[in-house]
Amino acid sequence: MSEDTASSARPDRIVTAAVLLIGNEILSGRTKDANLGYIAQRCTELGIRLIEARVVADDEAAIVEAVNALRARVNYLFTTGGIGPTHDDITADCIAKAVGRPLIEHPEARALLDAHYGDKINPARLRMARTPEGAALIENPVSTAPGFRIENVHVLAGIPTIMQAMFESLAPGLVGGAPLLSRALEVDLPESVIAGVLTDAQAAFAETLDIGSYPFARGGGFGVSVVLRSTDGDTLQRGLDTVANGLRGLGGTVEERV
Amino acid sequence: MSEDTASSARPDRIVTAAVLLIGNEILSGRTKDANLGYIAQRCTELGIRLIEARVVADDEAAIVEAVNALRARVNYLFTTGGIGPTHDDITADCIAKAVGRPLIEHPEARALLDAHYGDKINPARLRMARTPEGAALIENPVSTAPGFRIENVHVLAGIPTIMQAMFESLAPGLVGGAPLLSRALEVDLPESVIAGVLTDAQAAFAETLDIGSYPFARGGGFGVSVVLRSTDGDTLQRGLDTVANGLRGLGGTVEERV
Repeated sequence: MSEDTASSARPDRIVTAAVLLIGNEILSGRTKDANLGYIAQRCTELGIRLIEARVVADDEAAIVEAVNALRARVNYLFTTGGIGPTHDDITADCIAKAVGRPLIEHPEARALLDAHYGDKINPARLRMARTPEGAALIENPVSTAPGFRIENVHVLAGIPTIMQAMFESLAPGLVGGAPLLSRALEVDLPESVIAGVLTDAQAAFAETLDIGSYPFARGGGFGVSVVLRSTDGDTLQRGLDTVANGLRGLGGTVEERV
Repeated sequence: MSEDTASSARPDRIVTAAVLLIGNEILSGRTKDANLGYIAQRCTELGIRLIEARVVADDEAAIVEAVNALRARVNYLFTTGGIGPTHDDITADCIAKAVGRPLIEHPEARALLDAHYGDKINPARLRMARTPEGAALIENPVSTAPGFRIENVHVLAGIPTIMQAMFESLAPGLVGGAPLLSRALEVDLPESVIAGVLTDAQAAFAETLDIGSYPFARGGGFGVSVVLRSTDGDTLQRGLDTVANGLRGLGGTVEERV
């Protein structure tokens, strides 16, 4: 059972998040995204449910539309990409437009960049000090130029090492909700044989338990990972027993995957 | 220069696509998506521009909303996931709802499954014969149960090997548009030094050329991949020369990346 929640977790409520990946390079297939999986895993650990992710191009209209659609429906929106010094880095401009605030040179960000670059500061580097008015900075321990937060929108870098460092500097302040506990079984039977057992178990536990079925191919045969999730540990245990007994009744070899 | 287009390409127009990844497991971080990168790369090769991707949970309202938002704005929508035999495979139901057609047992799909499973056919396996009325099947050479196409929505499996085989069975029939040619340079200078050169080049070529700047960390330093894209080979060559000369003028070592 994994249970890793923020110290400030609020177990009485559901806390949600969305991710917006910004960048032509992901949509052209040139770059394989590495950021969604990281944020997804960390949110789960923090008791935050990621409910949607989108990838859009470096295009103002597309970014503004996605930011406004997503920020309205979650507690936390995380964006990655488009906050560097070049002409195609337009995320700060777009976030300002989306939240209806002027884009300013953030004094603290300017001070950080001045201290870092000294007399090598230049107009491109100063682009990285721009935020919507009222933004709070997100620390970048890797390469100085900060991310920022405005309302519930958290604007992170696209380079994975920097994105991860920024996320971790935010993490202690993120308030998780009811942690979703999970356990997983693996069985050496195909989905189409075990479907009835899963359907019956899902019906028996209804909304208190979520049963996911994830087939895999291995060594010429098919098997299934069955993932059970609940906010209640006892329910999870009973669901696990029900499913495991059902699968063994079909002649399957069942192992819990830790 | 890469130029790999469908035999039936229509170089006089822009052809667009979107991807919808369906599945709780991606949003929980349990599974790292491997499908977006594959479809993105193949679309680029086929002269199809991927303009947006979304990831949603196994939730009817979320799937229907995303299908309808995306299919209205692109030539091709590709979905992955949720077409297996278990209770959490609800993609066919959701697509039928989105396009406003009844969900039926597709006679050809039923015949394929009957031939494959023989007397081991069961209700779970028969779920995989369900499509919206009027759908055309997409061949699954790996495990028989087909995908389907209805209007401009192409419904593929979530398991990467099966998804890829389904995509390739579709590919000869996808009509690409003006192929986007691309060339890439690498330079051993940071983005904040080369930004001015890129901004000037982008301004000089305006809409005829797209210049992307993708920083990377390597061996303790930062460098940049500059990717130039155009539908016109001569423009691309002139753009490449302009940027390469500018970067060399800054003292950078510039190499074309093939």
